[in-house]
Amino acid sequence: MPRYRLLLEYDGRPFCGWQRQDNGPSVQQTLEEAVYRLCGETVRVQGSGRTDSGVHALGQVAHVDLSRPLEPRAVLGALNAHSRPAPVVVLACCQVDETFHARFSALERSYLYRILNRPVRPTLDEGRVWWHPKPLNAAAMDAAARVLEGCHDFSSFRAAECQAESPVKTLSCLRVFRQGDEVIVLARARSFLHHQVRNMVGTLALVGQGKWTAADLEAALQARDRARGGPTAPAQGLYFRSVRYEGEPPLSDTL
Amino acid sequence: MPRYRLLLEYDGRPFCGWQRQDNGPSVQQTLEEAVYRLCGETVRVQGSGRTDSGVHALGQVAHVDLSRPLEPRAVLGALNAHSRPAPVVVLACCQVDETFHARFSALERSYLYRILNRPVRPTLDEGRVWWHPKPLNAAAMDAAARVLEGCHDFSSFRAAECQAESPVKTLSCLRVFRQGDEVIVLARARSFLHHQVRNMVGTLALVGQGKWTAADLEAALQARDRARGGPTAPAQGLYFRSVRYEGEPPLSDTL
Repeated sequence: MPRYRLLLEYDGRPFCGWQRQDNGPSVQQTLEEAVYRLCGETVRVQGSGRTDSGVHALGQVAHVDLSRPLEPRAVLGALNAHSRPAPVVVLACCQVDETFHARFSALERSYLYRILNRPVRPTLDEGRVWWHPKPLNAAAMDAAARVLEGCHDFSSFRAAECQAESPVKTLSCLRVFRQGDEVIVLARARSFLHHQVRNMVGTLALVGQGKWTAADLEAALQARDRARGGPTAPAQGLYFRSVRYEGEPPLSDTL
Repeated sequence: MPRYRLLLEYDGRPFCGWQRQDNGPSVQQTLEEAVYRLCGETVRVQGSGRTDSGVHALGQVAHVDLSRPLEPRAVLGALNAHSRPAPVVVLACCQVDETFHARFSALERSYLYRILNRPVRPTLDEGRVWWHPKPLNAAAMDAAARVLEGCHDFSSFRAAECQAESPVKTLSCLRVFRQGDEVIVLARARSFLHHQVRNMVGTLALVGQGKWTAADLEAALQARDRARGGPTAPAQGLYFRSVRYEGEPPLSDTL
């Protein structure tokens, strides 16, 4: 069975998330239906990680097995045609070894979070940013973010529904900076807990408003208790940015 | 009557354009109704220039007269509340002299045009870019753009419905460059003919594809005949970027 690796971009707004659900169209279902239209096969499209409802992707990776070999270019073209008009596309497609697994072979993942930090609500970027009208001190957020980098028990930033075996993760990089009206957060790790990025961003926003210090953030981390972490930032500002596999260059920590 | 100057941002998608029309909601009508909800007055909101249906604005300017003085901050807040959920907002508001006229006092206007130049259709930027799947040579487009800079009869790039008295305009700057998957066009002039930017962009795309040379573009300009110009690029890639008035710094020719 030839296996194909897919690089995906999607607008999370109309989807109930990556994974098939009963309560609405998912990215996975849309792609699986496109494969069915391409070759009449009922397949499983395996993503490198799930994204929640409303979360976007700039470079999600998935794999799919087809029963007969097709040109990767033909697979890309057909999936993009058959998934239309849903806002999900295959940006690149290549055939890979059967040892490649989008989820289990992933060495590192990176996310981008966009906060629109101005008094006035978004228009063009509605649904694509978290609107935070109160001023945020991005430099203070960036300094405090250092507290979270490294290997820690992230229970204070873990959703109750998280299915990970352990709350211990190694956060390789967490950066915050201002770009015009926006405050951008970049996060990179081998893997993340459920809602970890959104919970870290929601908590860093408390630091950005001056309500919390870096020491408060550290105390919250040490408490290993979700009740001590800050609020969950909304899904709409979050972008699954990229995944790295063996033999590939490091993921970028800048825009 | 106190006069207020408004700096506006809008997503052009749901609007039939700037100007009041019978065939759908316009930006102007949305703002005029917000003023009515604020103070019960039926007013005219005067823009610095019209935009077509689907054209966006990052920095449109308008003015409006109210019968009694209100704090500019209160005007801004009320208009943003009352125009909700339409995707138009007032980014800034100040009181100005009655000699200020958003349209007639404008010294210069600038537009931005975004072409998504990749084989795969847009998802997150659907309705916000012109998707041009065939490769474009941005450097060739930029070199050819020099032909159009300066004072010319732009009849070859003028919509049939254009109401300007003269087809002669001075194009102060026209730049084309690549930024990732996008080809960006920046245009600056005291004023533009109807569809001038979209017609120039559509024609430059012929140069970018290698179908036209800079000499072809020059011949089209010299012909002073719309039939000799290239096609009109779609509205959705166009952004009204900024306006300059007396005493204000020059508009930027970079992003």
